[in-house]
Amino acid sequence: MIRNSDAPAVAPAFSTVDREATEVWLAQFRADARTEALGYLRRRCAEHLGHSPLSRELAGRLLDYAARGKYVRSTFAYVGWLCGAADSPAAVRAAASLELLHTFALVQDDVMDSSTTRRGVDALHVQAAQAHRRSGLSGSAERFGESAGIVLADLCLIWSEQMLRESGLDGAQVRRALESYDSMRTELAAGQLDDLYNDARDVPSFATALDIARRKSGNYTVRRPLEIGAELAGCEPGLLDRLTGYGTAIGEAFQLRDDVLGIFGDPALTGKPADDLHTRKASTVVALADEMADSRQRRDLRALAGRSTLDRASAERWRQLIVATGARREVEIAIEGRYSAAIAILDESVPERPRLALATLAQWCTHRSS
Amino acid sequence: MIRNSDAPAVAPAFSTVDREATEVWLAQFRADARTEALGYLRRRCAEHLGHSPLSRELAGRLLDYAARGKYVRSTFAYVGWLCGAADSPAAVRAAASLELLHTFALVQDDVMDSSTTRRGVDALHVQAAQAHRRSGLSGSAERFGESAGIVLADLCLIWSEQMLRESGLDGAQVRRALESYDSMRTELAAGQLDDLYNDARDVPSFATALDIARRKSGNYTVRRPLEIGAELAGCEPGLLDRLTGYGTAIGEAFQLRDDVLGIFGDPALTGKPADDLHTRKASTVVALADEMADSRQRRDLRALAGRSTLDRASAERWRQLIVATGARREVEIAIEGRYSAAIAILDESVPERPRLALATLAQWCTHRSS
Repeated sequence: MIRNSDAPAVAPAFSTVDREATEVWLAQFRADARTEALGYLRRRCAEHLGHSPLSRELAGRLLDYAARGKYVRSTFAYVGWLCGAADSPAAVRAAASLELLHTFALVQDDVMDSSTTRRGVDALHVQAAQAHRRSGLSGSAERFGESAGIVLADLCLIWSEQMLRESGLDGAQVRRALESYDSMRTELAAGQLDDLYNDARDVPSFATALDIARRKSGNYTVRRPLEIGAELAGCEPGLLDRLTGYGTAIGEAFQLRDDVLGIFGDPALTGKPADDLHTRKASTVVALADEMADSRQRRDLRALAGRSTLDRASAERWRQLIVATGARREVEIAIEGRYSAAIAILDESVPERPRLALATLAQWCTHRSS
Repeated sequence: MIRNSDAPAVAPAFSTVDREATEVWLAQFRADARTEALGYLRRRCAEHLGHSPLSRELAGRLLDYAARGKYVRSTFAYVGWLCGAADSPAAVRAAASLELLHTFALVQDDVMDSSTTRRGVDALHVQAAQAHRRSGLSGSAERFGESAGIVLADLCLIWSEQMLRESGLDGAQVRRALESYDSMRTELAAGQLDDLYNDARDVPSFATALDIARRKSGNYTVRRPLEIGAELAGCEPGLLDRLTGYGTAIGEAFQLRDDVLGIFGDPALTGKPADDLHTRKASTVVALADEMADSRQRRDLRALAGRSTLDRASAERWRQLIVATGARREVEIAIEGRYSAAIAILDESVPERPRLALATLAQWCTHRSS
């Protein structure tokens, strides 16, 4: 399990007072964004998913699911906005729309990976299967659950873009961000496709694994949301470049941390099983372990990856082998390097309030245990 | 099998010369729309699906799939446009964008229904599974195929809206149509959800089956595309109302015809097996047969629906029973009634060229055998 005791100090200019004030307003923002996202989702569901008791139940479960998010992407978008404009309820709504996009991604991902747990509860398609079973309808409940998950995700994909457009920002503001928005959505889906053949039984290079991680998750978690917020606010190109640099570094570090948690994390904290070994995900950590292993370690690693089933003792042995190759330590160093690089980019050209927020978020992204 | 020998005469004012000229330009439009949709799709795929040989192969199959469409929805959108504006390459592109939305819908539908054939070839997820098998990658080829189908469909959903926005029409024109566009996309996805529990072992009323058919397919095939085209062109409300009336009637008739073909159609013409009985789809025809049956026929119909498997002889007997209840004849009358009502709406307020096209399309939608 990961301990955070050795988390580094944040950027020097960052006083305890600043930090506490920043954490307070970020928490308030997350609450506001959650209210907006759920309000929008509730209205759309009432309009379109009221035809049967079962669809009303699915709508309720979708709302509960969306409520459980960490609102990371909307936070980065709003901090991007604050780099160029003042607080605005319309911008809160625009930022919150990214949570619906994220809901789309998670729900479909869980269907495709046959994941059963997410955000500390059953995955949405599993909940849909349970609802089907209780309703006494004919046909396969599992199949229904997967199909319902896919369709609910589609609706979130559609509604996310619609919520952005209907946020109350004017047409010219929204248009400035649409190119980044379209790229983000497409990279997200195309990245899922790459992920489908990203299987530890065919270990990719660390560089390839990192490239997929960057396109699939890093960009979409940090860099693109930040850019979208800053573009909505009309930030000038120099500032945008710095946000892109910060976002690229912290996005990669976020994904590297995710891959560490996917193998060594505490399920009680992450809300999902540490199952990247069980699903044979060819994550950055697995790829790096393969590269750093000596020939005997590599043979053992590949034998474990090739097993048809994996018991608890074998998973533990696999974890120990990864540590023994030095890959885990190397990934921690890689995370640290990106964290430092990102903090160094945050110079005085970034207004103070978003700068403090970005420093706080950088630390959370890279040193979180959930 | 359905014969079209008793197709009714079209609206009286419709001369053979008019009709031939209309068919020529509609065929030319379809060719142009296909070129635009495939060109856009090809550019997006080159940009985002070039990372591996397998994703390049999937992109090629997606393009081939999109090329095989009938371009019905884009045709209705362009005819709607011509009700208020002159020919325009930008409007052709805007109309063609609906084909990408349709590709999204078909590909995901086939995954959810486990359909294996579409447009005369293997369903896209089946093709993706074949590609996976040939590539020698590990893991389940079937599961990969389904996931790849879902993701390729997502990309088409995203790109459809992007293509509409990037069509070259100006922002004000596009904004006029976005409310209808959003409704259409949402109704389409929400209708798929309703379809998931639309199972002939729990026969709905004919009214319910027709309501689902209208929301899921009728609106999205005819009414909404027409409205979107007319709104893009800035048609006045009175004309829009008439197009909505025509679209509702022909959309329902289109779906009723689809349900007839789903049971009695010739697979060699429709490009998909006549398998609504095998999949136990609670289509309008099945629902009406249940309503019109006497008690003995109803018992036999429900016994057939309840079987775990259905051999060729039982399917044939089921078809004969449906005919015997009078449901097939009644559905033909319902199609005819909607056809006549739609033609009656097409008064002089609809400009001549789109009016002739709408008459031609009404006949095709209601009397087609493919």
